[in-house]
Amino acid sequence: MRHLCGPKSLGAPLVRAYSKNAPIPTQLSFPCVDQTLERTRSLDGGPEPLYDRIVTGYQVYQHPKPLILYWGGVLQGFDLAYETWGELNARKDNAILLHTGLSGSSHARSHGENEKPGWWESFIGPGRPIDTNRFHVICTNVLGGCYGSTGPSSALPGGKGGERYATRFPPLTIPDMVRAQLRLLDQLGIERLHASVGSSMGGMQSLCLASMAPDRVGRVVSISAAARSHPYSIALRHTQRQVLMSDPHWNKGHYYGGVLPHAGMKLAREVATISYRSGPEWERRFGRKRVNPQETPALCADFLIETYLDHQGERFCLQFDPNSLLYISRAMDLFDMSAQRGREARARRLAASEKHEVPLETEDVDIEEVGDGRDGEDVELVRGMSRIHHPTLVLGVQSDILFPHWQQQEIARSLRRAGNSQVTHYELDAEYGHDTFLIDTINVGAAVKGHLEQEPGSVGKIDS
Amino acid sequence: MRHLCGPKSLGAPLVRAYSKNAPIPTQLSFPCVDQTLERTRSLDGGPEPLYDRIVTGYQVYQHPKPLILYWGGVLQGFDLAYETWGELNARKDNAILLHTGLSGSSHARSHGENEKPGWWESFIGPGRPIDTNRFHVICTNVLGGCYGSTGPSSALPGGKGGERYATRFPPLTIPDMVRAQLRLLDQLGIERLHASVGSSMGGMQSLCLASMAPDRVGRVVSISAAARSHPYSIALRHTQRQVLMSDPHWNKGHYYGGVLPHAGMKLAREVATISYRSGPEWERRFGRKRVNPQETPALCADFLIETYLDHQGERFCLQFDPNSLLYISRAMDLFDMSAQRGREARARRLAASEKHEVPLETEDVDIEEVGDGRDGEDVELVRGMSRIHHPTLVLGVQSDILFPHWQQQEIARSLRRAGNSQVTHYELDAEYGHDTFLIDTINVGAAVKGHLEQEPGSVGKIDS
Repeated sequence: MRHLCGPKSLGAPLVRAYSKNAPIPTQLSFPCVDQTLERTRSLDGGPEPLYDRIVTGYQVYQHPKPLILYWGGVLQGFDLAYETWGELNARKDNAILLHTGLSGSSHARSHGENEKPGWWESFIGPGRPIDTNRFHVICTNVLGGCYGSTGPSSALPGGKGGERYATRFPPLTIPDMVRAQLRLLDQLGIERLHASVGSSMGGMQSLCLASMAPDRVGRVVSISAAARSHPYSIALRHTQRQVLMSDPHWNKGHYYGGVLPHAGMKLAREVATISYRSGPEWERRFGRKRVNPQETPALCADFLIETYLDHQGERFCLQFDPNSLLYISRAMDLFDMSAQRGREARARRLAASEKHEVPLETEDVDIEEVGDGRDGEDVELVRGMSRIHHPTLVLGVQSDILFPHWQQQEIARSLRRAGNSQVTHYELDAEYGHDTFLIDTINVGAAVKGHLEQEPGSVGKIDS
Repeated sequence: MRHLCGPKSLGAPLVRAYSKNAPIPTQLSFPCVDQTLERTRSLDGGPEPLYDRIVTGYQVYQHPKPLILYWGGVLQGFDLAYETWGELNARKDNAILLHTGLSGSSHARSHGENEKPGWWESFIGPGRPIDTNRFHVICTNVLGGCYGSTGPSSALPGGKGGERYATRFPPLTIPDMVRAQLRLLDQLGIERLHASVGSSMGGMQSLCLASMAPDRVGRVVSISAAARSHPYSIALRHTQRQVLMSDPHWNKGHYYGGVLPHAGMKLAREVATISYRSGPEWERRFGRKRVNPQETPALCADFLIETYLDHQGERFCLQFDPNSLLYISRAMDLFDMSAQRGREARARRLAASEKHEVPLETEDVDIEEVGDGRDGEDVELVRGMSRIHHPTLVLGVQSDILFPHWQQQEIARSLRRAGNSQVTHYELDAEYGHDTFLIDTINVGAAVKGHLEQEPGSVGKIDS
């Protein structure tokens, strides 16, 4: 019985005809592939991008001087798109700067110039978690974005006939985004914010601002963020970038005016969506439901969860600039509050300042690190967080795999070790994973409102 | 100061030259993209696939009759590759059937005919967790695979000149794989296995076999598996399939003899690797290390974790047949032990049996469901598990996101509700995520060994 065979030989296919009625193998159909091919073959280059017209009604701050970036690159001035809600008081001390996630625009809430709902529509307004009866709320599109701020889709300085930066845009970081925001605050005459508030990448910016310019902010809110990106999140963003860059239409970033890398963007967004919605919500919402339960399963989308993902990808891929996605996603990877990273960046920026004869900003001068860590490897992180002495709300979600609960603990622990006695850390058991901050107005909103509105003097203090 | 702008106009680029020394924007380089282009352009069609020669020294069972599949498809006979270790005793009651994960071959351990280490090398052998001094171990390449068993890369029945099934292969499920294995056991004269053992997809097969043919197995081991796939895992596999099918070289599955969908396979594996290694291991192993910390960050691989992922993808993409990946990954999505799924499948198979004049196998006859659930929606799952009355080890890993701990609880709970009083459920705090079953010989191995070797009569029983 025992016989050893090599691999199956294709030269001698088995010929078996035990049943004359046995069906001839039939070719499966692939509507998902046909759709992509159809789009690519279309003579007019396929659908037009919408990202440069989808957000309107914002204001633009035009910074008139060069900006030296964290990795030593230089921007010859920049634009920063922003929107505001609520009145700035006479003392200019009721402003809240709201930071966005990766793909957010300045349109956090609807207003007269743009009545479409914003990405934090129900969080902002009279009586809302960010109460516009009390506060003047400012939200910017980040540097590197595609909704009005300077980014890879912006005109190349000195370029001809609508030429864009594309992948000639210099490498970008979270501190660069914050530095640009500080220049906007200078222009608006806002010396000191009531609070810096952000979720996800916005939480990184929020922490970064408090560290970079501690005298310019009163309170800090960091929701589902991190003090430094962990390898699992870098891996998730890596695959998204790889998927996008593998689309031949991406063309090393030079697709403007040509065919968009539609398939790559769609796939990148599908991968991203999985990491954004890691909670048990899908179990309840989609379960194992198939679109057509009685039909033979297909290899293209068949389960409801698959059509949902396809839809999310499809919807996103014209709404965001692919190069902005690459640059900003890499900026998230590079985020690290550790003190030695800051020292290295200052050295690079100083060298670039001398080389290009561009002065550095005031917040680069006399950065003094205080505090110290106790665990060996965390010392530099604790040092890097030591300028954040403000009342700080750290809010995390248990079902978040992209910015998991242990990263929220890391923020809170590092701040406390650096001597901050005004840290509030909540862990929320919401079911939406990372995206909870966009959805759960009640639980996320209450924590934010409480932190922003608590009386000065009592915020962050404990009776003892 | 307040001025409302439309989106930035590209017709009038900003012309700013504040610093004459400011650097001209430079183009980033993309070695990762160049590599893919180079490979695709190569005249000889790029590297040859290795999967049809990478595994050798197996035996092949050639099933001489048609097999009716779960979704009503028919295979005109099939091959099943298998390897064995240890001696089958005279009573033929010491056999253990070992089931593989998605991409596993029959080569679980080295032997005289193939001295390369197998995928469970350290788990099998004299004195090992699966002790070959006691047991006769059988491992098969699954139906649908590419390591010697019939699958999409096999010759198309009646096809000409090496034509393959490709995507004419009928839709496949876990029960189909198990049914094929039972035919091999028939041939080997093994009436009743000592145990059915599997991890990941292999755990699904292990549960499925015990339910489909309860009299043919004594003990069951299910490691990091599921009683039914949850939407998050379907989503993860969906993106892998989409990424692969988006590679133009995939060509709806008809790439044999042409250029392989190398880029698509590589990317699919990168996405998969993230879901396989969800544990804290990466934090310790890679942390935030960059390949060249002093260099300006790139958009291609830059962090160590990225080069690791690229390497994993690169290594895999010639070692597995892309169509096998699609079919087997879909089979995992479709896995559902719920009783109503079984009833539907039997009706379809009965219809196909009559239509094609092919008799059904014995285990299709007289399947009686016993037991009952208490939670409304789980009733069908409990019913579907009710034939698994065997001593069953359910082992899960806390850091697994693909087959998370709550799915292990679901298996154990459903079995107990169906009346099984011999369920052992361990939750392991290993750091490797889903892949722990491939790595952690000590902790996974001890649980397996204990369950397999416990005296009959005491296994699964508690003194009371």
